[in-house]
Amino acid sequence: MLQLRFLQASLSPKPHLTFPLISSSGSLRISQTKLRSQMGSYTTSSQQPSKLLFRQLFEKESSTYTYLLANASHPEKPALLVDPVDKTVDRDLALVKDLGLKLIYAINTHVHADHVTGTGLIKTKVPGVKSIISKASDAKADLVVEPGDKICFGDLFLVVRATPGHTLGCVTYVTGDGPSRPQPRMAFTGDALLIRGCGRTDFQMKCIIDIVWELVSHDISCSGVACCVEVHSNYISQVHSQIFTLPKDTLVYPAHDYKGFTVSTVGEEMLFNARLTKDEEAFKNIMASK
Amino acid sequence: MLQLRFLQASLSPKPHLTFPLISSSGSLRISQTKLRSQMGSYTTSSQQPSKLLFRQLFEKESSTYTYLLANASHPEKPALLVDPVDKTVDRDLALVKDLGLKLIYAINTHVHADHVTGTGLIKTKVPGVKSIISKASDAKADLVVEPGDKICFGDLFLVVRATPGHTLGCVTYVTGDGPSRPQPRMAFTGDALLIRGCGRTDFQMKCIIDIVWELVSHDISCSGVACCVEVHSNYISQVHSQIFTLPKDTLVYPAHDYKGFTVSTVGEEMLFNARLTKDEEAFKNIMASK
Repeated sequence: MLQLRFLQASLSPKPHLTFPLISSSGSLRISQTKLRSQMGSYTTSSQQPSKLLFRQLFEKESSTYTYLLANASHPEKPALLVDPVDKTVDRDLALVKDLGLKLIYAINTHVHADHVTGTGLIKTKVPGVKSIISKASDAKADLVVEPGDKICFGDLFLVVRATPGHTLGCVTYVTGDGPSRPQPRMAFTGDALLIRGCGRTDFQMKCIIDIVWELVSHDISCSGVACCVEVHSNYISQVHSQIFTLPKDTLVYPAHDYKGFTVSTVGEEMLFNARLTKDEEAFKNIMASK
Repeated sequence: MLQLRFLQASLSPKPHLTFPLISSSGSLRISQTKLRSQMGSYTTSSQQPSKLLFRQLFEKESSTYTYLLANASHPEKPALLVDPVDKTVDRDLALVKDLGLKLIYAINTHVHADHVTGTGLIKTKVPGVKSIISKASDAKADLVVEPGDKICFGDLFLVVRATPGHTLGCVTYVTGDGPSRPQPRMAFTGDALLIRGCGRTDFQMKCIIDIVWELVSHDISCSGVACCVEVHSNYISQVHSQIFTLPKDTLVYPAHDYKGFTVSTVGEEMLFNARLTKDEEAFKNIMASK
């Protein structure tokens, strides 16, 4: 399991780039200085915007959304899947093939309790694909990411934002800003922000109970509990600081929807989200009554 | 039930326009000449494009997609729903309210055999909303449309294209072309074109059987049967001439999907649709074997 701060394609114009984008030793092929220089050029360049190819896919049994994103302007059409489900991997890979894409990453917003991730299965079917999850999730993946990291596919990228609360390791992936980026921006919020709702917090309670049990068993001080409770109580503040600060027209794509909604916006959720518009105390009361 | 060729809003800049857009006598408020003049100006104007607000909504039991379209640039934000389902009307109307839209039309692509349309229920809940269906469907609605008709919401509109085959009255609604229209274009194909598939044709066979029974009972000549068979056999040619002639990047939004796809493109379906890429004979054999 490698931990990397930049997952970046080399941007050679040659049509036969090699993927994956990280060398086998885990070191970057190009320096961070060069990367930043390349990044800077995107916001000032007058060239045509890179074209994002985007598909939303649904798994009916668990009401899960999987997202396919690809850079259609890049000769290799590098692509990534966010929150793939094991049962629909064949469908997703057939679509990747139909569209002539090169799948490079299979990414999770968090460890899913309600379905099995498709990342493992994808790796057996498409050699070279790297799985990605947050470091905070403490889960296994080829690459782990932390807040602020960029996951690049060609000159497009997703930025990692920490949105714990449903689980400790929940993150939101957000498309980059600037004239050469998709407008409006897009936020893949996992279970942290559902349309007009949010993910369950009883997984956090289970976490607390587990820690307390560990502490009692080993006669250890309670700092672990304090940490876990703090993360739980920060659900609202993290969503507000990491998602509600995005432009209001940012498109919100959650990991699940149970009512048939497919998309919302940050502005809409700031007004109408029945849970995440509350203060910490009211939120805790709502979640405790569920 | 009124039959109209143009369903057009008066385009006054005043914030309090009156809807619905058709007078109670069924005659247009403004002449067709004036309408065409206004239409012409959209393609040559250098003004900012009108902004389409778009939402795709899903009804899980019948795997039906309902589409909400609204003109967000217009002071009244006139909106329409395509293929609403009775069970999800409250969800759809709550969304319309949240977004501050004024629902003016509830439209069906065809008479649905697998679920109850929501148009009747919507009309009881939102006075002034007009239901729309094709004349060829021979179904009841406030307004009936024919191929070439435009359904306007502000200066945005949908054009009606005939795509019979699943039922005799199936139509596809397509967004207008030009710089002030949504790009890429969007086609709401009902059951005529599903992603990688198409609607059942055994409803047509039932139609033939019903007609034959009528003919036999009344000793009438077989012209009715010939007509019905011809429409059935024209499924492929109608899809090819009415949908596959659209720009390849036109987004295809069907009335149903059973595999979790949400959208496709004309170009993709021209390459990968397992049924509609066949010739008439092969298509008939495929459908007969279902």
